Amino acid sequence: MARRRTKRTPRNSAFTQRPFSEVRTPLAPVEMISADQVEVIHHTSLKVLRDTGLKVDSAVALDLLAGIGADVDRKTNRVRFDPALVEEMLKGIPAEFTIHARNPAKTVSVGGNSLTFATVSGPSFVSDLDRGRRAGTLEDMRNFVRLSSMLNIFHHEGGAGCEPLELPPETRHLDMMLAQTTLCDKGWQPCWLNSASRARDCIEMAKIALQTNDDGLRARPGIIGGINTNSPLLLDDSQAEGLIEFARAGQPIHVTPFTLAGAMSPVTIGGSLVQQNAEALAGIVLGQAACAGAPVFYGHFTSNVDMKTGSPAFGTPEYAQSVIVSGQMARRYGLPIRSSNTTAAACVDAQATYESAMSINACVQGHINVMMHAGGWLEGGLTCSFEKLILDAELLQMQAAMLDPLDLSEAELGLGAIAEVGPGGHFFGTKHTLERYETAFYSPILSDWRNFETWRDDGAKTATERANSIWKQLLNDYEKPAIDPAVEEELEAYVAKRKADIRPAS
Amino acid sequence: MARRRTKRTPRNSAFTQRPFSEVRTPLAPVEMISADQVEVIHHTSLKVLRDTGLKVDSAVALDLLAGIGADVDRKTNRVRFDPALVEEMLKGIPAEFTIHARNPAKTVSVGGNSLTFATVSGPSFVSDLDRGRRAGTLEDMRNFVRLSSMLNIFHHEGGAGCEPLELPPETRHLDMMLAQTTLCDKGWQPCWLNSASRARDCIEMAKIALQTNDDGLRARPGIIGGINTNSPLLLDDSQAEGLIEFARAGQPIHVTPFTLAGAMSPVTIGGSLVQQNAEALAGIVLGQAACAGAPVFYGHFTSNVDMKTGSPAFGTPEYAQSVIVSGQMARRYGLPIRSSNTTAAACVDAQATYESAMSINACVQGHINVMMHAGGWLEGGLTCSFEKLILDAELLQMQAAMLDPLDLSEAELGLGAIAEVGPGGHFFGTKHTLERYETAFYSPILSDWRNFETWRDDGAKTATERANSIWKQLLNDYEKPAIDPAVEEELEAYVAKRKADIRPAS
Repeated sequence: MARRRTKRTPRNSAFTQRPFSEVRTPLAPVEMISADQVEVIHHTSLKVLRDTGLKVDSAVALDLLAGIGADVDRKTNRVRFDPALVEEMLKGIPAEFTIHARNPAKTVSVGGNSLTFATVSGPSFVSDLDRGRRAGTLEDMRNFVRLSSMLNIFHHEGGAGCEPLELPPETRHLDMMLAQTTLCDKGWQPCWLNSASRARDCIEMAKIALQTNDDGLRARPGIIGGINTNSPLLLDDSQAEGLIEFARAGQPIHVTPFTLAGAMSPVTIGGSLVQQNAEALAGIVLGQAACAGAPVFYGHFTSNVDMKTGSPAFGTPEYAQSVIVSGQMARRYGLPIRSSNTTAAACVDAQATYESAMSINACVQGHINVMMHAGGWLEGGLTCSFEKLILDAELLQMQAAMLDPLDLSEAELGLGAIAEVGPGGHFFGTKHTLERYETAFYSPILSDWRNFETWRDDGAKTATERANSIWKQLLNDYEKPAIDPAVEEELEAYVAKRKADIRPAS
Repeated sequence: MARRRTKRTPRNSAFTQRPFSEVRTPLAPVEMISADQVEVIHHTSLKVLRDTGLKVDSAVALDLLAGIGADVDRKTNRVRFDPALVEEMLKGIPAEFTIHARNPAKTVSVGGNSLTFATVSGPSFVSDLDRGRRAGTLEDMRNFVRLSSMLNIFHHEGGAGCEPLELPPETRHLDMMLAQTTLCDKGWQPCWLNSASRARDCIEMAKIALQTNDDGLRARPGIIGGINTNSPLLLDDSQAEGLIEFARAGQPIHVTPFTLAGAMSPVTIGGSLVQQNAEALAGIVLGQAACAGAPVFYGHFTSNVDMKTGSPAFGTPEYAQSVIVSGQMARRYGLPIRSSNTTAAACVDAQATYESAMSINACVQGHINVMMHAGGWLEGGLTCSFEKLILDAELLQMQAAMLDPLDLSEAELGLGAIAEVGPGGHFFGTKHTLERYETAFYSPILSDWRNFETWRDDGAKTATERANSIWKQLLNDYEKPAIDPAVEEELEAYVAKRKADIRPAS
């Protein structure tokens, strides 16, 4: 067979999905602006760093930046960068890296033409059709990780879905990472990397999960972190120190400015991209100051606020433009790039779908290497939705299938079958068809292609209602991936010890 | 202002849309297969035409094809083409043309990097949330044309939405064309061009609408026609003779094979594209035989059937691949190309949205010049939906806005505003923002970006429910475009005369 598209999961004849595999696009990246315009954004952002600079509220970071020759004002925490210094520090950063999963079959490389999809990170709320929108719980979080594990199209568990809000905020990250490392065997991206000690917890748990030490993890990274600048032009201590910890541990980390045009950055996409670029470069330079050659990479989040309501807008034309141009900027620096699958919709409807489709298309066209929030994000990231997770899995699978190379070999073109069938015939019974029909075409998770009457008589369910059945069925079918009991015990022991350290019993 | 994005329609402060304008993509077309592979499809399709040929069930067409030197078997109606003949006949066909609208402000050119969006053509059923799916009526058809007229993103009235099934089938096309020419002042594409006499009716009504004669219409075309081959490899008399009529009248017409992989063409996309190409080339050659240099162009419809149910699938990964590769084929021949915005969904839900989004994206990426069924198509083309029309308008507007060139001039980049705001500030009150905020960003028709609580307290409406309000409000606001009463009378008189000819009173 020329195209192996889908594989039936063993326990459920109704559910088909592509096997787990890297996704690489054979298409050239879209160039939305000229090479000269890329240089305009680059040089304008260097002027921002030279003349206005960043405020960096971390003594450790200020020491590192002073050490490489940045102009550091200790009274105001303002740091200004000579353009030549920035250019110099951008040399020697890896253009690709590999994230080693607990299950080696789920190890993927990141960079170049590879597209890595990670589930949502950060929401406080969770929603499904049965119970509506509500505060996230431990059980919701674990169920979300179980579904991330089940859906092959997601390469990484991206952040454990929702926060378990009933747990103490100081130690919640440990419960989330325990779920990520034990209920799923993929590479993972920790949520909220907002202090050196939390970053260290991620690193320690990755070492246990992969049964390695600091050097081993540096040689074979297991996690991807990320920080946000507090746009405009501010880097706080927790983000700066999380970045330093990851860079020193050799774990890939992106620097993602929070540039919402019109509020945290200029009201133009061009101006916001300049500011994004300045902030991203400053963070990357800090990462290199912490550890030369560390895999620190480019983050994109630029969108805009709706100037009528002040609400953030996502998955818009401007968002798509900024994704694609950011891809051009990252390629100019020879760095991998992250962006996201976003929507501002309040429920899993047509708007959620078209805003996500526009985001995903822009990411694929722009060669975005790490698509965060690729599954489950709703409502500007405030909510993780179980139905949205299934919808996103379908959208991403469709993109992956679209990128499968077309087989135009003589056998596949079927010249003989065309001659055999001739004018006015049909191809259902030909040998060419019979040899290929079972796996010839994309097999959807969610789409219903039956005729109207059949669909109506089967309950006239919308795709969102079908998604509701699918995630429940998947959870029902969930099997915990194999894990060495000793490794699991060690992870649990680490979490218990850290909880006791952070919140000693009173 | 650098970007004029949206314009408030005068009568309704809640409804914003972009002004009517041509859409041209500044992006390079996506090349999914190599130039060598384009030649493989081309040469394999020439072998089909040489060895298997087409059955052409029209004496007029057979005479024309014999006249140019094709090998015509009068007993079987089989026509075979020497490859050199096909190559020769493909020379001298226009790569671009202009469709002159009754309102000159709505004249658009077709070809190159221009993207023309036309509303749906062909459904027998109509649907909306209030009354569900039902047989199309005259009033539905007219309302659909009114909405096509109101929505600026549609360049052409594409086929009057649904068939008015209560009217006699022999004369129904006259009522539809009367609505297209009087209730709307855009260029138009007649529905069902399935005989020489119907083609002649389109041409006569276009002449009246544009107040011109045969030569004038030839010099300044006013309509786009299309025919389908009866795949595999059959061209019936009605389609062949409609094509000949349009070619002789100098009205642009596309030849669109009905190649659903696995049923009417090989079970592989490669094989289906070979067959599509063979059938399209044969039709184009026939058009040139009828009138050398006539604007006959390339049609794409290739999708696949779901091999489990036999239902056609649309808006799938295979569909996107076939759109993009067909764009490459059309560019190889220097011809404009049509494709469609498709979905197999039974209602206006997430599936309808992602299948349409995938179709539209492929069309934009592949430089599809005429997007038929761009607004309102549902359920594999069986139904036209009023809510889907609004949804599609939003999807298309978003694409058009995404293709607006980014202004990266110094003023727009806002270096001064970035310096003025500085670390930790915000941009809401800056002069740079105040000068631009009203038109800075895409203004949606349908999207709701308000926060969850506001959305919930306002009725928690889905995008489809909001679309329902929007089309009703639009219809309420409809104003018939200006038309010279003498022209309208002449159109009505033509329709009355032709009805009397076709169905003489008993």
